[in-house]
Amino acid sequence: MNTPSTASLIAERIPGFSLPRELYCGEQAFQDDLDQIWYREWLFALPSCEIPKTGNFVTLNVGAYPVIVVRGGDNRVRAFHNVCRHRGQRLCAKTNGSNPKLVCPYHQWTYDLDGKLLYARDMGEGFDASKYGLKPVHCIDLGGMVFICLAQIPPAINELAANLTRFVLPSGIADSKVAFSSTIVEKGNWKLVMENNRECYHCGGSHPSLCRTYSDDPLMTVMEGPNSASPEILDHWARCDAANLPSRFTNAPDMQWRMARVPLMDNQESFTMSGKAAVAQRMGTIPWNDAGSLMFYHFPSSWNHFLPDHAIVFRILPLSPTETEVTTKWLVHKDAVEGKDYDLTALTEVWLNTNDEDRRVVEENQRGILSPAYQPGPYSPTQEAGVIHLIDWYCGLMSRRLSPNAVAAE
Amino acid sequence: MNTPSTASLIAERIPGFSLPRELYCGEQAFQDDLDQIWYREWLFALPSCEIPKTGNFVTLNVGAYPVIVVRGGDNRVRAFHNVCRHRGQRLCAKTNGSNPKLVCPYHQWTYDLDGKLLYARDMGEGFDASKYGLKPVHCIDLGGMVFICLAQIPPAINELAANLTRFVLPSGIADSKVAFSSTIVEKGNWKLVMENNRECYHCGGSHPSLCRTYSDDPLMTVMEGPNSASPEILDHWARCDAANLPSRFTNAPDMQWRMARVPLMDNQESFTMSGKAAVAQRMGTIPWNDAGSLMFYHFPSSWNHFLPDHAIVFRILPLSPTETEVTTKWLVHKDAVEGKDYDLTALTEVWLNTNDEDRRVVEENQRGILSPAYQPGPYSPTQEAGVIHLIDWYCGLMSRRLSPNAVAAE
Amino acid sequence: MNTPSTASLIAERIPGFSLPRELYCGEQAFQDDLDQIWYREWLFALPSCEIPKTGNFVTLNVGAYPVIVVRGGDNRVRAFHNVCRHRGQRLCAKTNGSNPKLVCPYHQWTYDLDGKLLYARDMGEGFDASKYGLKPVHCIDLGGMVFICLAQIPPAINELAANLTRFVLPSGIADSKVAFSSTIVEKGNWKLVMENNRECYHCGGSHPSLCRTYSDDPLMTVMEGPNSASPEILDHWARCDAANLPSRFTNAPDMQWRMARVPLMDNQESFTMSGKAAVAQRMGTIPWNDAGSLMFYHFPSSWNHFLPDHAIVFRILPLSPTETEVTTKWLVHKDAVEGKDYDLTALTEVWLNTNDEDRRVVEENQRGILSPAYQPGPYSPTQEAGVIHLIDWYCGLMSRRLSPNAVAAE
Ligand code: FES
Ligand code: FES
Ligand code: FES
Ligand SMILES: [Fe+3]
Ligand SMILES: [Fe+3]
Ligand SMILES: [Fe+3]
Repeated sequence: MNTPSTASLIAERIPGFSLPRELYCGEQAFQDDLDQIWYREWLFALPSCEIPKTGNFVTLNVGAYPVIVVRGGDNRVRAFHNVCRHRGQRLCAKTNGSNPKLVCPYHQWTYDLDGKLLYARDMGEGFDASKYGLKPVHCIDLGGMVFICLAQIPPAINELAANLTRFVLPSGIADSKVAFSSTIVEKGNWKLVMENNRECYHCGGSHPSLCRTYSDDPLMTVMEGPNSASPEILDHWARCDAANLPSRFTNAPDMQWRMARVPLMDNQESFTMSGKAAVAQRMGTIPWNDAGSLMFYHFPSSWNHFLPDHAIVFRILPLSPTETEVTTKWLVHKDAVEGKDYDLTALTEVWLNTNDEDRRVVEENQRGILSPAYQPGPYSPTQEAGVIHLIDWYCGLMSRRLSPNAVAAE
Repeated sequence: MNTPSTASLIAERIPGFSLPRELYCGEQAFQDDLDQIWYREWLFALPSCEIPKTGNFVTLNVGAYPVIVVRGGDNRVRAFHNVCRHRGQRLCAKTNGSNPKLVCPYHQWTYDLDGKLLYARDMGEGFDASKYGLKPVHCIDLGGMVFICLAQIPPAINELAANLTRFVLPSGIADSKVAFSSTIVEKGNWKLVMENNRECYHCGGSHPSLCRTYSDDPLMTVMEGPNSASPEILDHWARCDAANLPSRFTNAPDMQWRMARVPLMDNQESFTMSGKAAVAQRMGTIPWNDAGSLMFYHFPSSWNHFLPDHAIVFRILPLSPTETEVTTKWLVHKDAVEGKDYDLTALTEVWLNTNDEDRRVVEENQRGILSPAYQPGPYSPTQEAGVIHLIDWYCGLMSRRLSPNAVAAE
Repeated sequence: MNTPSTASLIAERIPGFSLPRELYCGEQAFQDDLDQIWYREWLFALPSCEIPKTGNFVTLNVGAYPVIVVRGGDNRVRAFHNVCRHRGQRLCAKTNGSNPKLVCPYHQWTYDLDGKLLYARDMGEGFDASKYGLKPVHCIDLGGMVFICLAQIPPAINELAANLTRFVLPSGIADSKVAFSSTIVEKGNWKLVMENNRECYHCGGSHPSLCRTYSDDPLMTVMEGPNSASPEILDHWARCDAANLPSRFTNAPDMQWRMARVPLMDNQESFTMSGKAAVAQRMGTIPWNDAGSLMFYHFPSSWNHFLPDHAIVFRILPLSPTETEVTTKWLVHKDAVEGKDYDLTALTEVWLNTNDEDRRVVEENQRGILSPAYQPGPYSPTQEAGVIHLIDWYCGLMSRRLSPNAVAAE
C-alpha cells in the first residue's frame, strides 16, 4: 500500500476536478510542493513601506528556511538566510524591527546590512571573514511590493515586474504605511487556502460582511481578456483608461498572476461595513473614491486588493501538509493618522471577519479530504474558473518539474 | 533494525501473555488494526434513541473516516461518509444535531436524508447529479443499538442481531433517551483500553465507587456457558427464565461478543453510590429493581450495562497508536424527568469516576509498554480470562487477514 | 533525496566545525545517538543524598526507557526498569517518593526493593515468581554521585570512579541534601545543550548574573594538564595541594570527563548575586570560603559545580531530536536550615537565570540549524576548545560504534 508518487498522482488527476487526496495532505506531496514551487518561485514577502528606513527588517519562514529582509544603508532592500554563519543561530528572532547592524545574539558575530561579516571575536589566525557573509536570497522591489526567491537561479520576472509596477504605481504603495497586520494559521493545505481565495462560489454562504460591497457574480472576477468582460466592467475600464488608470485584465499566459481593476457593488467605495471609504486620504494618485479594487493575485502565495483609500495585501506561507499561515496587512496613506483620518475597526473588520470565515471553511475542507472516502469532485465551470486556473497552473508546473527529463534549475 | 511485520509479531506472540510492544504502539500495527479490524468489522455507533426524529444525526470518526448517521423521512437510520462530493468538505462538523436536509456549508450542495444530491448550483450542462450522492456506509439498528460497518461487504451479523435484539428487547432501548453523554480521550492503544475493560483483576485497587455494587469476583463475569456458572448466577438465571427475561450466557464462538445478565452484589439495584436505583421508572419491561446488569460487549468497540433503571453504553474509537476516544452514554426511560425522576449526579457519578480511574491505569500501562525493556507477561488464567478471549480473538482475526492467502473481503 | 546515514554524516564532517544539520535534528541521527550513546554509556542520574533512606526512590526517563533508582533495605542504591513484569504498567509514576515495597498500581504485583517479585495474586499453578523480578539497570554510587547504565555490559568506569570519588570527597555530597530542584525543557538537540555548556564564548552576551562571579576567560576553563594552566590557576592549585584538596586538571584521554578546581573571579565565594556564600555552613571538609568551584563534566549527560557552600548538579536527558530535559539540583549541607542558614532565592537565582538564558540561545540555535541553508561553521580555537572536545569525543565514539566492524557490545 505504497503512496503513489506526486508525479503519478498529478498525471492521473482529472482536469476540472479537485485533486487526489494525497496532494492535499501527504508528507511527500508537501515536500515536493516546497522543493518544486516554494523554494523555486518568486514569492511576495512584504510591502516595502514596512521597512522604510535603513536597518528596518522583516523576517519570515518559507518552509524550513528562515529569511530576513532588510533595508541597507544604500536604501536597497535585500534578503538573506536568517542563519548565523558561525554555529547556525537564527540571527533575528523577531518578526520585524530595526538594527544598525545584524548582530548574532549567541556570540555576537556582527554582519553589515549588506550581509558582510564585519566582526567575529577570537576566531584565530587564518580565519577569513570574507567567507562567512550571510547567504543571500534573491529579492526585488516591484513598485513597493517586495518579492523574494530562494532558488539559485530564479525564474524570469520581467513580465510580472513591468505590469505590476505599472498597475500599482497610482496606488503609491511605497509611500504608504502599514496600519494593521494580522497573522492567522489555517489548518489546511496551502492549495486549499488558495483554492478558497480563487472563487466566490462560497461567498454568499460565508461572507456576510464582504458581500455588502463585493459582488459574488463570477462575471466580476472571471474575464476573458482586456477587451472582453461584462458591460459593467467594460464601462469601468473605459472610464479608467480616460484617467490613465491601468485597469484592464492582464495575466500571465499560464495564469500564475493576474491584475484587473473592478468596481465594487453599486459603486461603493471600499470594503467597509458602510461601503464608504475607511480612510480620509486616498492613496497615491487614485482619482476617485469609486475607482473600485485593483485585484492582483500571484501563485503560489499572494492575493491583494488595492482600493482608493487603502490596500490589503495577503501572503500565505505553508507550515505543514495541513497548516498554512495567512498574513494580512492593511496599508494606508503614510500621512493618515489613526483616530483622526481613519478608525482601525472600520478599516479592518470586513477582512478580519472574512479571513476568519475562510479559515473555518478551509479547515472543514481539509477535514473532509482527510477521509479515505474523499473522491475528487467537479469544479463549477463558471463559478470556479479561477480554481481551475490555479490547479492547472499547479499541475502543469509540477508535472514538468517532476518529469524524469526536468533540468534541476529548469 | 527494521520493525517486524504485524503478521510476524502476531505469529510469534506467546498465548496467554500480553502482546509484543510494537502491537501496542507501532504506527504500522495501528494502520493494520484500522485496515483489518476497524474498517472491516461492525462497530457499535450509537443508541437509536439519540436520533429519534427525521433529520436527527450523529457524527463520529472511525480512524480517518468521518461518518454521519442520520434518520430519514422514512424513519430509517442510515450512515454516510460525512464528506461532500463537490470538493470534499466535511458535511456536518457538529457531533449531533438536526437538519431537514444535509446542506454543505461550503457551497451549499444539498443532499436528501437518504444521501441523494438534490441541488448543486451552476454546475453547468452535462452535470449528472445522480452520480454525486453521498457515499453510503452499512448501518443496522439492532433493537435500538445502531451498528455501522465501513467494509464494502460487511461480515455476517445475523447471529449477533438475533441474540442482541432478543436480549435488549426488555430494556426498551429504542424508547429511551440519552440523559448524559461523556467523551474522554485515554492516552493508550485501543487494545489496552479494551483489555482493561475485560478484567476486574484491577477493580479492587482502582474502583472504590464501582466496587460498592459490582463484584470483582471473576466467577461473576467469566462463565462457561448458559448452564454453567456459579450457583448464585444459576439462581439468578432461573429466576429470569421464569420471568421470560433473556439472561443466560450467550456468546460468539470466537468470543467477539457475549451477553449475560448477572446480579449486582448483595442484590443491589444499580451502579450508584447508594446501590439503589438512580431513576424512578424502570426501563422497558424489566420486572424487578434487582434484575442485575445485562452485560454485553462486542469487539473491537463496545461494552454495555443494561440495568433495570438505566443503561450505560460505551463506545471506543481509535485516534492514534496511543490514543483512544471513549464515549459513554447514560440512557433512561424517555419519560423520566431530570430533577424529578432522577438526579444526574447520582445517575452518572459511579461510571464517571470509574472511567477516569480506568483512564489513569491505561495511560500508565501505555507508558510502561513504551519502554523497550517491556516484555510480554502472563495473564492470570482466572482473573484475566476475558483479556485472553480478547487477545485470542484479535490475534486469530489478524493472522487470518494478514496471511498471504487472505482474500481481501475474506 | 535520501538522508545520508549517521555514519557517513560523521565521516564527512569537518573537524573544528559544527556538525552537519541532520545530526542536530534528524530522526535517524537521534535514534543512533540513543542506541550508541545514551543506551550504552554511564549516565549521571542523581545525587545519592536525594534518596537517603530505605525505600526512597527517584525515577527518570532515558530516551524510551523509564528507570527507577531506589535505596534498598541493605542501604544499597539499585536501578531497575520501571516496568511491571505482569502487563507492563509503569511501576512508579512520580518523579520521587518513598515506598516500603514497589507495588504495581494496576494489579498490585508487589516487588521487594531489590527487584524480587514477592506477591502476585491468582496467577495459578505453575507460575514461577522468580522469573518475574524487575529487570535491573547497572547502577553505581561514586562518592554520592549515582550513575546508571542501560547496556548489558557497561563500559569501564574504574578510572572515572577513582578520580571522581577522590575529587568530590571533600564536598561531602553523600551527606548533603537537595535544597531545590528545577526541571526545564529546552527545544534543542541534546548536543546543542551540551555544546552551549562547553564554552563561555556566549557568557558575556547572555549571562549578566553568572558573569559577576564566573570568568568568561577561556583560560579559566581550558587547561592543558595538571601542571599547565594560567598563573592564577596554578597558584590556586598549589594552595589546594597544600590543604590536600584535589584540584588539578584531570581528564579522560578522550575528554569524556574532566575535573578541575578553579577560583571564582576576584576570589569571590559562590555563584550568588553578591559573590558571597549563600549557605552559612560549608559543605564536607572544604577548608575555605574561597576554594572556588570544582568543575566536573561527564559526556553525554552532566556538568556540575562543587562550591564551598553548595553544589549544583546538572543532568540532561534527550526527549526528541529537538527537545532536551535539563534538571538542576542545588545541594547544601544536610543540617543547613532554609530561612536560617540560607535564603533559597539567593541560593538559586544565578543559575535559574543562567539556565533560562541558555535555554533561549539553545532554542534559537536549533531554529537556525533547522534551515537547509545552515552550513557548519568554524569553532573558535580558543573560546570553543571545550566544544571541540565534545564534538571530537562524539564523532570518535559514534564512528567506531557505527562502523561495519563494530562489535555490538564494543
Ligand atoms: S552562532 Fe552566531 S555568533 Fe555564534
Ligand atoms: S465542497 Fe460541498 S458544496 Fe462545495
Ligand atoms: S501490570 Fe503490574 S500488576 Fe498488572
Ligand atoms: Fe472567502
Ligand atoms: Fe476498570
Ligand atoms: Fe551558558
